[in-house]
Parts: sequence; structure tokens; C-alpha cells
Amino acid sequence: MTAPIVTLTTDFGTRDPWVGIMKGVILGIAPTARLVDLSHDIAAQDILEGALCLEAAAPFFPRDTIHLAVVDPGVGSARRAIAVRAGGQYYVGPDNGLLSLAFAQAPALMAAVELTAAEYRLSSLSRTFHGRDLFAPAAAHLAAGVALERFGRAVADPVRLVLPVPQREGDHVRGEVLAVDRFGNLVTSLRGEDLSGLVSSALVVEIGEVRLGAPLSAYADAPPGGLGAIMGSTGRLEIFARDGSAHAMLGRGRGAPVVLRRV
Amino acid sequence: MTAPIVTLTTDFGTRDPWVGIMKGVILGIAPTARLVDLSHDIAAQDILEGALCLEAAAPFFPRDTIHLAVVDPGVGSARRAIAVRAGGQYYVGPDNGLLSLAFAQAPALMAAVELTAAEYRLSSLSRTFHGRDLFAPAAAHLAAGVALERFGRAVADPVRLVLPVPQREGDHVRGEVLAVDRFGNLVTSLRGEDLSGLVSSALVVEIGEVRLGAPLSAYADAPPGGLGAIMGSTGRLEIFARDGSAHAMLGRGRGAPVVLRRV
Amino acid sequence: MTAPIVTLTTDFGTRDPWVGIMKGVILGIAPTARLVDLSHDIAAQDILEGALCLEAAAPFFPRDTIHLAVVDPGVGSARRAIAVRAGGQYYVGPDNGLLSLAFAQAPALMAAVELTAAEYRLSSLSRTFHGRDLFAPAAAHLAAGVALERFGRAVADPVRLVLPVPQREGDHVRGEVLAVDRFGNLVTSLRGEDLSGLVSSALVVEIGEVRLGAPLSAYADAPPGGLGAIMGSTGRLEIFARDGSAHAMLGRGRGAPVVLRRV
Repeated sequence: MTAPIVTLTTDFGTRDPWVGIMKGVILGIAPTARLVDLSHDIAAQDILEGALCLEAAAPFFPRDTIHLAVVDPGVGSARRAIAVRAGGQYYVGPDNGLLSLAFAQAPALMAAVELTAAEYRLSSLSRTFHGRDLFAPAAAHLAAGVALERFGRAVADPVRLVLPVPQREGDHVRGEVLAVDRFGNLVTSLRGEDLSGLVSSALVVEIGEVRLGAPLSAYADAPPGGLGAIMGSTGRLEIFARDGSAHAMLGRGRGAPVVLRRV
Repeated sequence: MTAPIVTLTTDFGTRDPWVGIMKGVILGIAPTARLVDLSHDIAAQDILEGALCLEAAAPFFPRDTIHLAVVDPGVGSARRAIAVRAGGQYYVGPDNGLLSLAFAQAPALMAAVELTAAEYRLSSLSRTFHGRDLFAPAAAHLAAGVALERFGRAVADPVRLVLPVPQREGDHVRGEVLAVDRFGNLVTSLRGEDLSGLVSSALVVEIGEVRLGAPLSAYADAPPGGLGAIMGSTGRLEIFARDGSAHAMLGRGRGAPVVLRRV
Repeated sequence: MTAPIVTLTTDFGTRDPWVGIMKGVILGIAPTARLVDLSHDIAAQDILEGALCLEAAAPFFPRDTIHLAVVDPGVGSARRAIAVRAGGQYYVGPDNGLLSLAFAQAPALMAAVELTAAEYRLSSLSRTFHGRDLFAPAAAHLAAGVALERFGRAVADPVRLVLPVPQREGDHVRGEVLAVDRFGNLVTSLRGEDLSGLVSSALVVEIGEVRLGAPLSAYADAPPGGLGAIMGSTGRLEIFARDGSAHAMLGRGRGAPVVLRRV
């Protein structure tokens, strides 16, 4: 059997040992697990940013990969801890929407349980570090072959993030910026399917007062230093600056309205 | 046999290839070693910060884990290089106190040697990069099964960091801030055992002019935006700001006095 | 057979999931591959910085290591994608010079191919993320044992970076700063061989108006807070500040002239 893969996504940063501690716990339970970091620099407590990270990455991992994610402003409160199987992969983390964009990609194939079984936690459960005491052990026991249903009772209604739905009106569709990536690219709520019926025509992309041309198919198609729009590698429309930061050039970030218009 | 785990803790950062180079050296000697990063963003030459990182993480790793740490302002000087076995784990690094908080957790079970055997170093030993030439090879040879005593003669007196000892006076105990973590939490020198005899009473925590309530048991128990104290996940009393940075709000950092008082 | 090692060097940063996505793709194709990060914090689109990173690290990895590197301002344009075998190791990335300092270390043993075979790419090749669609699959198929020549036709003239050649004139040799590392050390174009005939004499190192003594053999040989020169661990002359940043103290960076003079 191939060694199981466990990915890790947190807002813990990499300066403190929290991520390393979770890995120690995992390897103590599942010594053959392969550990892959997705990101530990999710903005502190930014559930949406974490959810977008998982949504983008999960499709590129093999079947049976276990995605462990901890962005958990409610640690120590009454929020549930869950494990989910969807699309042939597993997701482990707080039930606050963090996992939901990823598992929503395979809604017909989903099962979820609440993590309550004491035998799959560390013996002393703190109220401050469930990543170590609860989520890492659960991911590791999944990696070691424990069946999902043994972790606790089924959860029918895991919390789901609601993303802004693009609004189609006549000759245009209206979305917004969801995230800014490390290059200063603005990732929008507009996906390929939102453009159907528009894409065959001449298009412009508008952000605030600024009007860009039709979506390009490569960053290198924009003029040096210029702005452009592109269907990004996550399947969302992005606004970028060639060799620069669209975020800095436009002064726009999360929530900024973006319109795709037929002209 | 399970593949040996080697953790890495340095102040090398992750922008330059120094950590990757150490990993290449390790895998050349011990091809099955599992490599786990604890932190490479220890503040430059901050031995205490590195030592606290190791102390916090080591207990969560399995038996026989090898902890390689390099925060080494004295590289190229006369400071010794050591390997230590304590509590069923190994520690490899400069003899400047960096390893000492971790191995002090198992003082009765400790053996230390100086790393002098030429056959367990790279053939040319620089005076600038012992992480590569000396410590990584030693950790790798330990991972490959070489016995501790073959690396050099026993060291009876490895350098130990002396942390400020909490001062108990009547109705209070006085400690100080040791470190600031990535969330801006202030980690203090006060541990659970320092609170004995105080904890059953009503308590307040004081930092400078600011008086906080008794230690909470979850971050979520503090009011939004408010300050609180908590026994943190490393076993030390911490001062935190809910959804914010206590470091920024209080303007306090390492060395700031902290008092826990019975009222 | 030992599990193959795949190193990764990019300018993708570690906040976004791009590196994790590449790792998912690799492990889907080559489940036993060992993944080692060299750096993901290469300055955006800084091919020289990436090339210096690979050049410094590759010699410390075992035979048959596969070095995957993506610093790729021309993604989506006509630049070629290549895989190179040199010195018993493999290099995979864009043909823009990024790999060239590393493979130039073994010029007599080099073979290069263009990555054109459709069966060793993801089925849909974007024009925005060749790291995921093209380079990660190629590295993984190499790790899985596919022979170099099956990826595409031979490339006789891979792009090579031209570093400034140190100029020898009488009693001195003139070079320049190539890079600034995380400690603020200034890494120069002067290598050990450029100093031959000079090193037996009394030497000074000059940067701008500032004159330093002869190269030291350890950082600790400089006075506290003082500047020094040293043959760094990559084999290049470096200018450093003991317990500080030479970059900050001197206000000098890439391109600053450096002279080594016999006195």
C-alpha cells in the first residue's frame, strides 16, 4: 500500500513550533504518513482564505489524501470538530466552513462525522490547541486506516461558507474580489461557467473606474507593467499586473466589485 | 524498522538554500530519514528563542527522534559541538545552551558527547557553516544507527541556559515575558507548578499597569478584542488579545515583568 | 532502490497553495518521491537569485536527485521548457538560464531535452501555471524512472546566464555583488580561483569607499558589530557584518563593485 498523504493548512505561521508539533503527533500515530504543507501563512483567523487554499489544492492530490486544516477562531468554544469524506479524499478540521469549499466540489459523495471518540484524541484535550490534541490525531488515525464512522456520529449539516454569487444582468456579470495572492493578483468570484454566453463576444473587465480588455490567456500577453485579466490557474477570473502587483496598482482588495461586460 | 525522524530548527530563514543544503547532506547519509521542520525563522542568533522552540516541540515526537538545531553565533570559534541523548530522543547542535531546555526535561536520562570524530563530518570542515559540515552529518549518522559514544568523548557539563526563576512572595509570584509568538501572545516564565497554592483562590494577572482577570481556559472566553491570560499549550502562562496582538496592544515584549496575584 | 529525491525552488512564496499543488501532482505520479524545498522565496521573477540558489545547493545532494525549479517570467510565451542531466543529477524548469549555473558545474556531462511529449504533462496545459502542468509532471516522471530522451528532442543550446567576469588588473581583481542573503551578507562574483596569486600576499577588500581587511576564515574573527570579508560557504567571497547586516550598514546591494587588492 502506498504511504498515506496528509496535507496541512493553518494560520499558525512557520516561526513558532506549532506546525512541527502537529507533525510529531501525526508521525507518532502514523509513522509512514507523507506530510505536505499547503500553507501555514493563511491570514490569522481568515477562514475564507484557508477555504480557498484547500479548494484550489485538493483536486491535484491523489485519492485518499487526508487534508488537515486548522484556522480556528472558535477553538475552545462550542464549535464542532469534523472529518469529512468527499470525492475520494478526507478533510479534517473545525466545523466553521474552512473545509466546505473543498468538499463542496464533490457534494454527491460526501459523508461527515463529528470528532468525539476519545480514543482518537490525545489523552489531555486542551482548550487552546486542538490542532495538536484533536485534529492531528484524527488525521493520523485516518492515515493509519481507522474508518471514518468510528470517530463519532454523522453530521448532516456541516457549516458551509456562502460565497457571493455572481449576478448576471443582460450584457454583463458582476462579481467581486475574493482574495489577493502573493503576487498581488486579485482573485475574483467569477468562474468559467459564469462567463458562458459572454465569452464568444468582445468582452471587457471592469474594476472600479478601470476598464481592462478581454481576459488574456497568458500573463505574457499583457504589455510590460500593464494590467490584464486572465482565467487563473484555480479556475477563477483574476486581475493581474505584468511584472507587478495589481493589488498595489489598483488599491483594491477583497470585496472590490468586478464586472465582466460584453461590448 | 520505522524510518528515523530528524527535526530541524535554525535561524537560517527559508529564502536562502542553507536548510535545503543540510537536508541534502542528511539524505545522502541516511536516505530513509524523515525530515520535519520545526522552525527556520528563529530570530537571528537568538539562542533562547530556539531553545524554547525545541523545549515545546520535543515532547510530541516519538522515541528516537533526532532534533538537529543550529542557532550558532559562535560558529568558527572555540564553542563545542555536541550530541545529547535524553528522554529517549537525540539532540544535535552547538554547545551554547540551545539544546538545554529540551534535554533538561529528562535530566536523569542524559548522556552527551562532543562531536569530534572526523569520520562523521564532511571531509572539509568550513568555519562558516557547521550546520552543513558538522551537525547535519552527525544527525544523519545517528539516524543511520551510529552509536552516540562513537562521535567523541563524553561531555559532563553541556552549557545550560538559565531562565529567570519565578519569585514567590506572599500572595503573589513574579515572572517575566520570555518570548512573543507569531500571534503577538506574550509567553511568560510562569509555569503551572509556579501557581500551586495560588490557583484555588481568586487571581489576577498584572503586566505593567494593566491588570487582567484570572487565567482563562480558552481564548474564546475573553471578550472580543479584550486581553486575557491563559495557561498556553506549552505549559507556560501566556497573555493574549482575543483576535489581536497582546504584544501590540500592551507594547510589551521579552523581559517585561508579569505578576500573578491572589486577591 | 532508494526513493528518488525531488527538490523544489520557486518564487511562488509559501502563502498560496501553488507549491503544495505541485507536490500533489508529483506524489500522484511518483508516490515514493522524497520532496525537499530549497526555497520558495526567490524574489519574484529573479532568475539570477534562483540560479544562485540551485548552484549552491545541488552539489550537496546525492546522485540522481531531480531539481525542479520554476522562476518563470515568460510562462505562456515561446520560451522552451527543458530537462537537463548534468553531473549525475537532473534539472527541470524553464529554459531561461535558471538552471544554467547549476548544470554548468558539470559541463562535460550534460544532456538536455525540450519537454514536449504530451504523455508526461497534465492533460490540460494552462498558459499560466507550467509548474503544475508541465514541470512537476516531468520531474515526477523522471523520479518514476522515465528516461530523459523520452521527454522530447535534444536541446544543444540551453540558455545560460552570463555572470560578470571578475577583472584582474595588476595588483587587484574587480568583481561585484551578486546577491544579498537573509542575514544581509553581500555575496560577490569573486570565487576562490579569482584570488590565485593574490592570496599569499596582504590583501584588502574594498566596497565603495569602505576598505576592509583581508578575508577572514570565520565570522567570529570580525570584531562585534564590525564588517568583514570571508570566503563564504558557497565558495564566493562575501562581505558580512558581525551580528548585523552588511547590506544595511553599507547601503549596498546587487551590482555594487567590489575590489580585492594586494597591499
